[in-house]
Amino acid sequence: MKTDYSALYKVLNYLFRQETYLTMALTHRSASSQNNERLEFLGDSLLNYIAAEALFERFPTASEGELTRSRATLVREETLAEIAQQMNLGDYLQLGGGELKSGGWRRPSILADALEAVFGAVYLDSDMNTCRQVVLRLLQTRLDNLSPHKINKDPKTCLQEYLQAQQRPLPIYRVLTIQGDPPTQHFEVECMIDGLAVPAYGTGDSRRRAEQAAAHKALNILHGN
Amino acid sequence: MKTDYSALYKVLNYLFRQETYLTMALTHRSASSQNNERLEFLGDSLLNYIAAEALFERFPTASEGELTRSRATLVREETLAEIAQQMNLGDYLQLGGGELKSGGWRRPSILADALEAVFGAVYLDSDMNTCRQVVLRLLQTRLDNLSPHKINKDPKTCLQEYLQAQQRPLPIYRVLTIQGDPPTQHFEVECMIDGLAVPAYGTGDSRRRAEQAAAHKALNILHGN
Repeated sequence: MKTDYSALYKVLNYLFRQETYLTMALTHRSASSQNNERLEFLGDSLLNYIAAEALFERFPTASEGELTRSRATLVREETLAEIAQQMNLGDYLQLGGGELKSGGWRRPSILADALEAVFGAVYLDSDMNTCRQVVLRLLQTRLDNLSPHKINKDPKTCLQEYLQAQQRPLPIYRVLTIQGDPPTQHFEVECMIDGLAVPAYGTGDSRRRAEQAAAHKALNILHGN
Repeated sequence: MKTDYSALYKVLNYLFRQETYLTMALTHRSASSQNNERLEFLGDSLLNYIAAEALFERFPTASEGELTRSRATLVREETLAEIAQQMNLGDYLQLGGGELKSGGWRRPSILADALEAVFGAVYLDSDMNTCRQVVLRLLQTRLDNLSPHKINKDPKTCLQEYLQAQQRPLPIYRVLTIQGDPPTQHFEVECMIDGLAVPAYGTGDSRRRAEQAAAHKALNILHGN
């Protein structure tokens, strides 16, 4: 674990005055009771607002749905973990013994949470404008590549809207099996639709992904593919 | 519908410079394509951040979970609709014909969305500090009455934590029946738990409420009540 933050300051383009904020942001709950969970709470809300405002300004004709989906792609765990990896944030994390052994510094959820905590720490160490600059700089490339009207609705939303347009009942999702233990579980779900003789099935490593897969299949069936 | 905003300015403790922002915030999508949906997107993110920061500062020893639950009670639709009602916000709403006939100005979701849009409008018309003052003033009484460590976890969270502590599989919720059409639907769900011979049942006017009711019953069964 690195405690020389100079390379991190460079990639953040921000120099902490009170380094204790940054140290706390990089401390996982497995390492100490003085950890990054509260900073993550604050940083998550800052990130959501900063991304919302940037999208609101940048895309004056985008609908609320397009803005919501655009923000979801910017602030989801996967994106944040990617940014954290590019920053080598994992090298600076303080983890407890169990998390160290199991390679916690590579875990997307731990990396994403730490990055949100760093945003919270920057804010406490400076002010909103500085924090906004740090956050938007890290999101810049992804913001530039966004086309809100091109972000597809997820299959569950599409299926719901399709059925509502036909005034048919909403689909019912049921988890059929869950195999394994977190974080490597495997879910199998069915999606039942009034009027379809057999359910559509989907699998995935989260309930949400399995449901999306099932909704995707259901849409294919409904569209006769 | 009132277009004289003077009473509203008083209760907001804020005078709009550009009244068009406020008018847009009070225009439901049923009335115009120039409606409050984008402002609601912005206002929701502002409210979440402002509430997060206020709780973070006010409760320096609260855990992340306590902060999250505290914020949820402050910013949920029910709370926002109550505040909107106390402000008589419904009197100022521009609604389309269908929503007018069905009493849309009383609908909690329409009131809560409009209040979030008003927060977005205040922000655009002024700045973050002014917006923060307006929001916190309206949340003041509820903030003063919060005790983060006393906010109970919801039954689904309790049930999940109870089962995880015993290293048992997570509960599986299934929607059994949905009666009626939105917004007056009635849900019946079952909650299945490995090791329990019969599922626990719950009903409610949303899937979430029905699942919470089922989880509450399941906890009672597990605790031998």
